Amino acid sequence: MNGIAALSRIRVVLCRPSHPGNIGAAARAMKTMGLHRLYLVSPRSFPDDEAVARASGARDVLERAVLCSSLSVALADTVFAAGMSARRRDLSLPFSWAREGAATLLASQAHGEVALVFGNETAGLSNEELALCQLPIMIPANADYASLNLGAAVQIMCYELRLAAAGPGPLPAEAVTPAQATDIEGLLAHLERAALASGFLDPAQPKRLMLRLRRLFARSRLEREEVSILRGLLTSFEKKKIRRKT
Amino acid sequence: MNGIAALSRIRVVLCRPSHPGNIGAAARAMKTMGLHRLYLVSPRSFPDDEAVARASGARDVLERAVLCSSLSVALADTVFAAGMSARRRDLSLPFSWAREGAATLLASQAHGEVALVFGNETAGLSNEELALCQLPIMIPANADYASLNLGAAVQIMCYELRLAAAGPGPLPAEAVTPAQATDIEGLLAHLERAALASGFLDPAQPKRLMLRLRRLFARSRLEREEVSILRGLLTSFEKKKIRRKT
Repeated sequence: MNGIAALSRIRVVLCRPSHPGNIGAAARAMKTMGLHRLYLVSPRSFPDDEAVARASGARDVLERAVLCSSLSVALADTVFAAGMSARRRDLSLPFSWAREGAATLLASQAHGEVALVFGNETAGLSNEELALCQLPIMIPANADYASLNLGAAVQIMCYELRLAAAGPGPLPAEAVTPAQATDIEGLLAHLERAALASGFLDPAQPKRLMLRLRRLFARSRLEREEVSILRGLLTSFEKKKIRRKT
Repeated sequence: MNGIAALSRIRVVLCRPSHPGNIGAAARAMKTMGLHRLYLVSPRSFPDDEAVARASGARDVLERAVLCSSLSVALADTVFAAGMSARRRDLSLPFSWAREGAATLLASQAHGEVALVFGNETAGLSNEELALCQLPIMIPANADYASLNLGAAVQIMCYELRLAAAGPGPLPAEAVTPAQATDIEGLLAHLERAALASGFLDPAQPKRLMLRLRRLFARSRLEREEVSILRGLLTSFEKKKIRRKT
């Protein structure tokens, strides 16, 4: 499977979560990124109203969550599991950072079901739980305070998995008609005439006025309608000036 | 400023947040990624115990938060502001995705203070608020359910800002002594002898046994101590076999 469809082969496993609110937050984080398969190993309280409240529009993810008595059960039919850890452990496998870890996990789903495993809020994964995973993953964080909330960690990893699966996708189309070169030359010529007529531009000492205006418009990436507005404004200023003179 | 220090020039502005818990979650998300400057525009309730609870170890970020009466006030001394939006608006500026937007924001802090602006939980930023920003940013999300929690959106953006500022940093060092080539050749030779002696390897039909074992060990990236353990095991198996024969 490729693209977004690959995300359906990834299960998110929460081991012994203490706070039902975090289960809901994890479900919401998953669904916003297109993941739907939540496994819960011995949650302290589930189902729970607080989980439903924090899940918001991802109640369906909670309702289809799979309850397991141990991490081994949750991983039984998987071909690859990555486990989150905030610290290095003795005899652990080599770590990956979140971004590379997400890419590895995604590549592994080509062979079958894979899992991303999160530990308890306070203690993280136990060494025994982490030993059931083939890849420990760390989220880069402030060394002085690296304590990400569980739901927030799920959000970052699901975001990275989505980007690894399909990239960010096309940006929403802009409803824009850019000005053509002749429109902009017309505007600059108009501005120059007006600036000379008003006396702001001294032809004996032009300095770099026109170059600066040209640079400003190049950076602005003018739209056709904006050129019309600016020329209309200019024409109006020119008329006013004439009126004042008479 | 370069590296992590650049993050100190970025203020995170929350406009009209409804839920104090989200203010706390945002403070925690910021601190985990090394950002510390929180601005609050007309929060519904602040200070608030729920914000403190959800901030966990980031209470200092809450305590130093700057309260503002409007977004213009919060942005007054900034040279660049990016505003988060979940949808395209009429007459908006061209959007960036989260990753590119974080890089642009970070580059802009070379010229002075910059801001990353988040809207209200339900309605997002108003068009008037977004118009005060020079860059609208979208987080790539599931088109069927793109409703990220406010704290989760802050977490993703601060994570991207940290990576844009300094990358993920070095991975924690592994306390590992890899095996040398001669160690591995010794192990393979030992295995071959044992496999011949036991009858598992038929010298007339060796197939690709030794090639497969070599491939397995290459992938395993054996440590020196693991080679010792495996050779010890082999020696023990060989002895047992001899004893059984006698």
